[in-house]
Amino acid sequence: MSLGHVVFVGAGPGAADLITLRGARALAQADVVLFDALTDPALRELAPQARWLDVGKRGFGGNGCNSTGQARINALLVAMASRHAQVVRLKGGDPSLFGRLEEELLALAEAGTTCEIVPGVTAALAAAADTRRPLTRRGRGRSVAFTTAMTREGSLHADPKPADSEVYYMAGRQLAVLGRRLRAAGWAADTPVCVVSRAGWPDSLASSHPLAGLAEAALLHSGRPTVVTVGEAAREVAVAAPAAPAASAVRALQPVQAEAPAAAL
Amino acid sequence: MSLGHVVFVGAGPGAADLITLRGARALAQADVVLFDALTDPALRELAPQARWLDVGKRGFGGNGCNSTGQARINALLVAMASRHAQVVRLKGGDPSLFGRLEEELLALAEAGTTCEIVPGVTAALAAAADTRRPLTRRGRGRSVAFTTAMTREGSLHADPKPADSEVYYMAGRQLAVLGRRLRAAGWAADTPVCVVSRAGWPDSLASSHPLAGLAEAALLHSGRPTVVTVGEAAREVAVAAPAAPAASAVRALQPVQAEAPAAAL
Repeated sequence: MSLGHVVFVGAGPGAADLITLRGARALAQADVVLFDALTDPALRELAPQARWLDVGKRGFGGNGCNSTGQARINALLVAMASRHAQVVRLKGGDPSLFGRLEEELLALAEAGTTCEIVPGVTAALAAAADTRRPLTRRGRGRSVAFTTAMTREGSLHADPKPADSEVYYMAGRQLAVLGRRLRAAGWAADTPVCVVSRAGWPDSLASSHPLAGLAEAALLHSGRPTVVTVGEAAREVAVAAPAAPAASAVRALQPVQAEAPAAAL
Repeated sequence: MSLGHVVFVGAGPGAADLITLRGARALAQADVVLFDALTDPALRELAPQARWLDVGKRGFGGNGCNSTGQARINALLVAMASRHAQVVRLKGGDPSLFGRLEEELLALAEAGTTCEIVPGVTAALAAAADTRRPLTRRGRGRSVAFTTAMTREGSLHADPKPADSEVYYMAGRQLAVLGRRLRAAGWAADTPVCVVSRAGWPDSLASSHPLAGLAEAALLHSGRPTVVTVGEAAREVAVAAPAAPAASAVRALQPVQAEAPAAAL
């Protein structure tokens, strides 16, 4: 029988201040926090009273992404909820998108543990904000699909134009392959693509490419969590508004616009 | 010449505590806030020092959604930034999704006004959280498309299965038509559909239907902002975890699961 309940909290994709007020309140009331590698360490300041357990890839039995790692996370979640009033399961971005939430919900249900979910900002939205490129546009960009390039077996898949724009998550290591697969799936060679790494962080980095030149983004974003926006949403808004000054009253968001030279593409 | 700059802030889809910490800080430093009808009035407590201007449909020249209304919002935004250090443009959900952000960015660029964007939680993520139905699932739900059923001309359009799941925004008034169009576009009659209105609010309401029975949701969600999830993401997680008790330490999220009786469908 479970003593406590579990609150899944979306930490947002980047710096700690992209968490919601509701998420921050859940952290402030947590006894235990199970967190992933990608969440900002500064979030600890929101729950200094809690025990923080790293269940990310590096911190938890080698690989939290394989099924053994996931089973251990599920078991730990259930065990913690049996001993504590409030367990927060902190996930990067939003828990409902590419967060393996289904598996953890099932484990809690089987154990009779109650839960709730506090949504968060997902990386695609932070990438759009950092680059000031809206995901939907009047007339031309009526829909946007969020997708992962990776199948369960680890192979890469590209869709035949499922929406006016697509945002690929977790494709950073395979940009060249993604570019080839998207062209094979019917996207034109000059389709605009915007690659953003570390979206939502102060050192967010963005680069623009035609689809045929996507491979050139690999080195620039190497080793950084990356989202790839393809299609209308990747286009710069015609006359781009100048970036806010670095001394902005709010946290400065100044993505480096490392535009690949047209000649090289 | 502009004195100040504009911060677009995603208020999140529902109750005030779904705004990000960064968004809350931008409000605390605002001189003026231009807000839409759908944002929670409680957000005013985050910026009691600011002048709040309602530019939503009801508050601003009849219809903020038509081009005249939009042009007036653009002009007001530029005018306010010429007189104040920090203007916050507060938008329901996330500014980059269905927020008419492109038009406002262009107006600011033409006026030479600087801006930045603070992302927010979009309604689809709050709907998934309220109903504990992840938007992506292992194996079966690798992609999700966010789309509006309405074209610029106000007619309704349904896509031929662009992703494993689709979330339709702003379709609440045309659920019966949406159901027919989706079936005509190739979705099976028994495709699971989940309709959530007022996602992210304490009075969030959810109902499940097979696609063929979608019309039955119209009365239940009448007059409330609605998102419609179609496909894998609409499926209940096999053994649903029990909802958190109402006396939950965090804000209670208890969507009414108004499941339509199977016989009626």
